[in-house]
Amino acid sequence: MSLSPKHMNGSKNVEGSDRKNLIPFASRLYEGRALAQDVWSIYNALNLPADCINLGQGYMNFSPPKWVTEAANDALQVVATNHYSHPKGRIRLREAIKAFYEPSFNRSLDPETEILVTSGANEGQYSVFTAFLEQGDEVIMFEPFFDQYLPSVTFNGGKPVYVPLHPHTDKVRPTSNDWTIDFDELRRAITPKAKMIIINTPHNPVGKVFTKEELEKIAVIAEEFNLLVMADEVYDCLVFDGKEHVRFATLPGMWDRTVTVLSAGKAFAATGWRIGWLIGPPSIIAPTLAVTTRIVFCTNSPLQEAAAVGLEQAKERNFFAIQNREYEERRNLLTSAFDKLGLKYSMPEGSYFVLLDISRVDFPDNYPFPKSVEGRGRDFRACWFIAMELGVSSIPVSEFYCEQHCTIGESYARFAFCKDLDTLRRAGERLQGLSKYIK
Amino acid sequence: MSLSPKHMNGSKNVEGSDRKNLIPFASRLYEGRALAQDVWSIYNALNLPADCINLGQGYMNFSPPKWVTEAANDALQVVATNHYSHPKGRIRLREAIKAFYEPSFNRSLDPETEILVTSGANEGQYSVFTAFLEQGDEVIMFEPFFDQYLPSVTFNGGKPVYVPLHPHTDKVRPTSNDWTIDFDELRRAITPKAKMIIINTPHNPVGKVFTKEELEKIAVIAEEFNLLVMADEVYDCLVFDGKEHVRFATLPGMWDRTVTVLSAGKAFAATGWRIGWLIGPPSIIAPTLAVTTRIVFCTNSPLQEAAAVGLEQAKERNFFAIQNREYEERRNLLTSAFDKLGLKYSMPEGSYFVLLDISRVDFPDNYPFPKSVEGRGRDFRACWFIAMELGVSSIPVSEFYCEQHCTIGESYARFAFCKDLDTLRRAGERLQGLSKYIK
Repeated sequence: MSLSPKHMNGSKNVEGSDRKNLIPFASRLYEGRALAQDVWSIYNALNLPADCINLGQGYMNFSPPKWVTEAANDALQVVATNHYSHPKGRIRLREAIKAFYEPSFNRSLDPETEILVTSGANEGQYSVFTAFLEQGDEVIMFEPFFDQYLPSVTFNGGKPVYVPLHPHTDKVRPTSNDWTIDFDELRRAITPKAKMIIINTPHNPVGKVFTKEELEKIAVIAEEFNLLVMADEVYDCLVFDGKEHVRFATLPGMWDRTVTVLSAGKAFAATGWRIGWLIGPPSIIAPTLAVTTRIVFCTNSPLQEAAAVGLEQAKERNFFAIQNREYEERRNLLTSAFDKLGLKYSMPEGSYFVLLDISRVDFPDNYPFPKSVEGRGRDFRACWFIAMELGVSSIPVSEFYCEQHCTIGESYARFAFCKDLDTLRRAGERLQGLSKYIK
Repeated sequence: MSLSPKHMNGSKNVEGSDRKNLIPFASRLYEGRALAQDVWSIYNALNLPADCINLGQGYMNFSPPKWVTEAANDALQVVATNHYSHPKGRIRLREAIKAFYEPSFNRSLDPETEILVTSGANEGQYSVFTAFLEQGDEVIMFEPFFDQYLPSVTFNGGKPVYVPLHPHTDKVRPTSNDWTIDFDELRRAITPKAKMIIINTPHNPVGKVFTKEELEKIAVIAEEFNLLVMADEVYDCLVFDGKEHVRFATLPGMWDRTVTVLSAGKAFAATGWRIGWLIGPPSIIAPTLAVTTRIVFCTNSPLQEAAAVGLEQAKERNFFAIQNREYEERRNLLTSAFDKLGLKYSMPEGSYFVLLDISRVDFPDNYPFPKSVEGRGRDFRACWFIAMELGVSSIPVSEFYCEQHCTIGESYARFAFCKDLDTLRRAGERLQGLSKYIK
């Protein structure tokens, strides 16, 4: 489907007649890259070789745990769990969230006023933007940013303000924590129109787990400029090497202004279940509930029950510790392939992404690139070349930067390691073919 | 949770300190009753007697068909159907929608550009409003209206314009088709700011199935004023007594300007699955896809597969014809209880609601009503009285009118008959207790 404005605003009639006054779509769609061809549809299986290994998109090629899918099937056998849930979420899931998260939030949580189930973390984030943004309100986001933030902000009248993480990856073995904030730059970016700041830790795509010191500095700024904080912590259960994940909401004074975004899809390898939840004070949850109730009314019921069982039994099954070790093994398998090639990457401390430094990958300039990657960053062409020649897809990181800062991203490709070991092993073997293209 | 603006905009701190500058929520929440206590939470099981029979909310007290839930469980066993779907919807479901709906739309449908799966019909509607409404655009809706329309329009900057259906229920045995449009009134309501019109057929809560003649008159107006038409046909599979359901999009010239809204929840007794779909021309579907992709990214995968199986097998199983007869039996059982009481109602030709004329129900003025129903229409008190005294809940119809027109709705209570026969029989017996309160 063409997403060009020309096609959609009716200047060309899809039925072939000459109607000139088809109904124009809303101007908000001209903002926030909403109509641009997104990176996911460029590096889509349909455009790539049939046997290409997909390390581009961040979904698992394995199933949720059996005991969790069984709980979903149990719910399908019960009348009530096939019908509407309360817009706040099913009480069983909200109680499970309360019990599971109280220790790490270091406070008691009221399932009626401080927990809200949403149709995926994505819809939760969107609802917060709808609930809080006025026309022209500025939202600070660190680059590289999760690409959905941008149109979600602009659709609600907000204006993104970009502050880049700066890579200091000249070390022999850089890690994701070598991407740092310039706090003076952050302060300079804050105007009187600033309303929100988004913190994503563990970070997609960098894999950075923000340190307590970094978060404390952000907290001082949030307090000083009275910012609402969206703490996108959907990868909170994927933190490696014994690193500590600090919840932003637990910093002194931050609970009142922070909404934490969490995801069953990431926690239980069920990205297609579309179950997420928000935790925050009633002053943030209540207006967000008013919004999500109108957008989706409620979230699907049977998979909420399954997510509840997941949280209820995770501890006794030692599920997250085991899963973490599995992801570490996956990460290490993929990065060992990069080591073998002698290519640098930022060893991720969390999430399931790794940024490979592709500046030394020397693809032919006259390679037959499609139009969709011409005129974009060098990384768009590198990712295309790697996918077509070696059969492993990845995502160009400049997509996650504003135009002004996109040269920072051009040196990196994002590889997802939320794949089984066999797939990662095969991908690693294929990628060795890059050796002859390294300058 | 209190939804009062006072509570939420931070004038009172939920943590007990004296912070005055908590972050205010967006002004769009002051519009469209978004913060008012909605009718669903007033007539909620928690507020009513424990054994109250719930004929208020429109969800079934029976399960989806076994062969459909089995398909959901099959999908849970497959890796891919636990992960992200394409934002357009899973291809199997889009192909099933194409095959199922082509005959009734009387045209071929392109599953890539003319079909869009959404997270319930509700999210589909919301996405259309986001895709098309500019600040101040007017949206015409007939009263009584599905209550979600109002905030969905105002959250997106639109302005609702209300045109009431007029009841002519002075007959001995009125039907839902005795609620009619005054077309002069409709024309007078259309200003140069009019952008959209919503048609809900079969109609919630009236049960009216709009006649071809009525729809043709609306089509003339839609053409004349270049309106985008949202045809909310979520009850299209529940049409009784051999009545013909006319799809608005099939009227001459209307395809180009009409998006039809449909629902797996209504079709397969699975209101908690949150699967709906939109059918329309690429000029409407493409911008709506751009929006829904940002709001929810995609719809839950396993239940999409199940809905696909539902549509694939419905015809050979004669499913909808059988289900229709079951609903007719449910409707007749409930309305026979009203007949026995000698109370008038509008016999519904579609949907699963019936409007009971409660103007003759004479409850005591000094009954201990809660604050939530004081100061609302007389129907709010009547519904409360019936629920508390007789143990059958219903919904007051003035909720579905603007303030100016709410006296029309005050004479009616909405009863849902999407319940099993035993429940409806018991409800009918209980309702006979009303006889001593009929004046």
